[in-house]
Amino acid sequence: MTSADQAVDTLSSVVDVQKYNRSIHIMAMLIVGFGFLMVFVKKYGLSAVTATYLLVSVSIPLYFVINSKGIFGHPQESVIDKLILAEFAAASLLICAGAVLGRLKMYQYMIMGVLFIPCYMLNEWIVLDNGFGLIPRGGCSDTGGSIIIHTFGALFGLGVAMTMTTKKECETEIESDATSDRFSMLGSMVLWLFWPSFCAALVAPADIPATVSNVVIALCGSTIATYFASVALRKKICIADIANAALAGGVAIGSTCDHASLTAAFTIGILAGVLSTFGFAVIQGKLQDLTKKVDTCGVLNLHGLPGLMGGIAAIFVVKDINTSAHLKSILVTIVVSLVTGYIVGIVLSLFGRRTEAYVDSEEFIE
Amino acid sequence: MTSADQAVDTLSSVVDVQKYNRSIHIMAMLIVGFGFLMVFVKKYGLSAVTATYLLVSVSIPLYFVINSKGIFGHPQESVIDKLILAEFAAASLLICAGAVLGRLKMYQYMIMGVLFIPCYMLNEWIVLDNGFGLIPRGGCSDTGGSIIIHTFGALFGLGVAMTMTTKKECETEIESDATSDRFSMLGSMVLWLFWPSFCAALVAPADIPATVSNVVIALCGSTIATYFASVALRKKICIADIANAALAGGVAIGSTCDHASLTAAFTIGILAGVLSTFGFAVIQGKLQDLTKKVDTCGVLNLHGLPGLMGGIAAIFVVKDINTSAHLKSILVTIVVSLVTGYIVGIVLSLFGRRTEAYVDSEEFIE
Amino acid sequence: MTSADQAVDTLSSVVDVQKYNRSIHIMAMLIVGFGFLMVFVKKYGLSAVTATYLLVSVSIPLYFVINSKGIFGHPQESVIDKLILAEFAAASLLICAGAVLGRLKMYQYMIMGVLFIPCYMLNEWIVLDNGFGLIPRGGCSDTGGSIIIHTFGALFGLGVAMTMTTKKECETEIESDATSDRFSMLGSMVLWLFWPSFCAALVAPADIPATVSNVVIALCGSTIATYFASVALRKKICIADIANAALAGGVAIGSTCDHASLTAAFTIGILAGVLSTFGFAVIQGKLQDLTKKVDTCGVLNLHGLPGLMGGIAAIFVVKDINTSAHLKSILVTIVVSLVTGYIVGIVLSLFGRRTEAYVDSEEFIE
Repeated sequence: MTSADQAVDTLSSVVDVQKYNRSIHIMAMLIVGFGFLMVFVKKYGLSAVTATYLLVSVSIPLYFVINSKGIFGHPQESVIDKLILAEFAAASLLICAGAVLGRLKMYQYMIMGVLFIPCYMLNEWIVLDNGFGLIPRGGCSDTGGSIIIHTFGALFGLGVAMTMTTKKECETEIESDATSDRFSMLGSMVLWLFWPSFCAALVAPADIPATVSNVVIALCGSTIATYFASVALRKKICIADIANAALAGGVAIGSTCDHASLTAAFTIGILAGVLSTFGFAVIQGKLQDLTKKVDTCGVLNLHGLPGLMGGIAAIFVVKDINTSAHLKSILVTIVVSLVTGYIVGIVLSLFGRRTEAYVDSEEFIE
Repeated sequence: MTSADQAVDTLSSVVDVQKYNRSIHIMAMLIVGFGFLMVFVKKYGLSAVTATYLLVSVSIPLYFVINSKGIFGHPQESVIDKLILAEFAAASLLICAGAVLGRLKMYQYMIMGVLFIPCYMLNEWIVLDNGFGLIPRGGCSDTGGSIIIHTFGALFGLGVAMTMTTKKECETEIESDATSDRFSMLGSMVLWLFWPSFCAALVAPADIPATVSNVVIALCGSTIATYFASVALRKKICIADIANAALAGGVAIGSTCDHASLTAAFTIGILAGVLSTFGFAVIQGKLQDLTKKVDTCGVLNLHGLPGLMGGIAAIFVVKDINTSAHLKSILVTIVVSLVTGYIVGIVLSLFGRRTEAYVDSEEFIE
Repeated sequence: MTSADQAVDTLSSVVDVQKYNRSIHIMAMLIVGFGFLMVFVKKYGLSAVTATYLLVSVSIPLYFVINSKGIFGHPQESVIDKLILAEFAAASLLICAGAVLGRLKMYQYMIMGVLFIPCYMLNEWIVLDNGFGLIPRGGCSDTGGSIIIHTFGALFGLGVAMTMTTKKECETEIESDATSDRFSMLGSMVLWLFWPSFCAALVAPADIPATVSNVVIALCGSTIATYFASVALRKKICIADIANAALAGGVAIGSTCDHASLTAAFTIGILAGVLSTFGFAVIQGKLQDLTKKVDTCGVLNLHGLPGLMGGIAAIFVVKDINTSAHLKSILVTIVVSLVTGYIVGIVLSLFGRRTEAYVDSEEFIE
């Protein structure tokens, strides 16, 4: 082996190590980001971070096992690619958990995780890997996961919430205070700042600069838009809007992050910020009154609607997109997530109910 | 294209991805670091982090637009270099915001951001890029931004504070409590630990190990010095000294981070820690009594004085430095920052005044 | 120099920059991770984070000086390798500090740091670098530091605690509250997520993917096991178990992280989680009653026992291990840490005692 050959070998390892570095950034988003974003519930912070720990710890090994057995498509050869894909699944699961946060017992979160992962992998297989021969490989443009991660997780969570909301829980106010809000902003900020690594995790080195710039600019757009929308819709700023809707640009840019221009990215970010804030300020209350179901963290507004918007935006932004395959991917994701989520919710309800929602004291020593 | 050519191409992308990684570290400093450092104001934490989000989100796209139009010098070709330079500008803006924290309405922060960026870019152009032919390219030694980022931001902020301090605000005590102090220490620590990436962001790969070691050692020096100076000057430890002055080594090493020996770095760190603590413990109170102007976060003590000290230290540390050009750079930065800051302050005062300073409740839903 | 030669040069720098990146991740663990994990003590949070700052700032430059003088073995040539080794020493020191947290004055922490580092380096030299010709180079399998970092630090700390616990301190309850617990979970999570970089810090690029996957899977195992063990042993979940024992998989996988299979890693993680939780829930109280000595953070349970377990596990997991050399390494580490720790404790006790333990107010301005 010549020294040039060795150099090429090392270079390939170096590229893998860079992927690994992005996997750490994603882990920061999963653990500290999602974990602390959910700490906004005043008396449920310890449960929120513990549930985060457990959901990540259940989902990553499970993804490894199922993937290695080749149940949905071929096993990943690269262990780093597998780790990143498992983290994507964990992200989607954490989004789903946000919908029913505070209304599950700790072991129910874990059962939900065990049931979620195969459903997620089924959808991933159909949409990205030609599962059942439904959608041609490459037909879905979704590098950063607007559709298969965000929309899927949010709608699955809403499916679960259908059965996992009691009348009493629906009437219980979900309170935050200045300290829980500051923790929540910490989670939000950790998500914001590592988001470029999330979208660029599996992107080729040469395309990373453009991809990450797009993600940063989209987030800037949604953050500014959220401020204006929050003040416009509510008179004063609502910190929950800032903590959540500021991230909507990251959610929405996922489908187009490696194709958009900076101007398109900024526009998508602004639209997503407005849409998400509108969701939190207007849709959430109305929907809860209508359905008597609670979406604790408002994942419909942060992940569901902006994810769908971002998925649809791809049709206008991505050159030479296979429109019909892309739309089919969105449709399949909606159907699979809602149906499997609803079924999983029914299963979870068999494991009982909490006495009181949104309090640590039921399961934690004080 | 041979496989060797491809390897060289990939290698160049890999170097860019490493820059991108440092840009994420800097983003952590901007968003979580500066954001939470400013949360020390007890009842103003939600405003501090929201203002941070907005200042970053306004300044980065604006820097991109102005740079792309080539208004000050030639546009950057590399989008990653551009992102890092935009982050440097955002850092300087956040420093500036620290001076008037709590006394601006949320939209006034954004207006300040919009006005700050061109002023910052004007100075950057003059000092680093031979703007107006004043200073030869390479004449200013400031890889880590002691002068053009820290000193500029601090003095600009003091310029703004000239008009943006009312008598009532000057008499209002700025309170912290144990929780706001712990959040502030979190911000401080995030700044501390990622500081090497800030200073090494645009340094060539081969020079990075020496640069980052210098930064770490300088921070160790200032942290130890801060403890001793705080106890010496105040009898007991003041946590605000620790949260702030411990970082002064990072500020001061900026001008010499890629030239200093480890011993020089440690010395600069110690001196900066002492100077900064002296600023917080002694100068700040006297200056406020004298001028009746408030520097909320004490940016003069953390960024202004240590930045100047670091800039001057370069004359003794950097071999073959062009002393006159370097000193001219410092002088220009002082003049441009104070003058433009003062003008921007006058503009901001036209947009009204807060009813009460340092409280979230004026603009946030409780 | 041809362009191919230049590329090989750049590639070598790039590999160093990747090491540097891992050194930043480790710094995040040291400063924010250990720092905030120790904030669980309700009224001692400012001291905990200040002590963390000071311990890191004392130990890293000191390690540099001693290493450069070649007192224990040859000086490191690579400054990045030296930085990472210094960070390992700082990690061990912070573990040690956890044992006596709240019972030392601030300058006593620093004195402890100054005395700890040479003891640590002595052990490091004997175990890894054939010091005194006792153990053949490569005889100890401990890439991620289960033995030389975790076990050493914990036992050294227990040695110090022998003298640094008064009767009154033993009877003082160490209180936490919901806010200090949430900060502690933040520290825990930062440790968890960057742990793969800790273990892989000095691993060759080609072996990094397998190493980091093992660490992640081991942490998943200990996290799940901790939940079940905590509920089984205490009826309800204890958040201190989650914050601490969830990390035991990272501690225990250190000796085998670059050799284990994923299944072995998961098993080691589960066992470590159970062992650690058992330590916190059962052993800690009994041992304190028996010895009248306090281990504030329970470092025996998180670092001591899981570190030993991980060290012993290597005998079953690492192919072609030199069992006798490996066991000798463990034995030497136990003896050196306990003896030097005990002596350092005696020295520290000469510098006086706190009036009241576990409160910031004794040393901080309120």
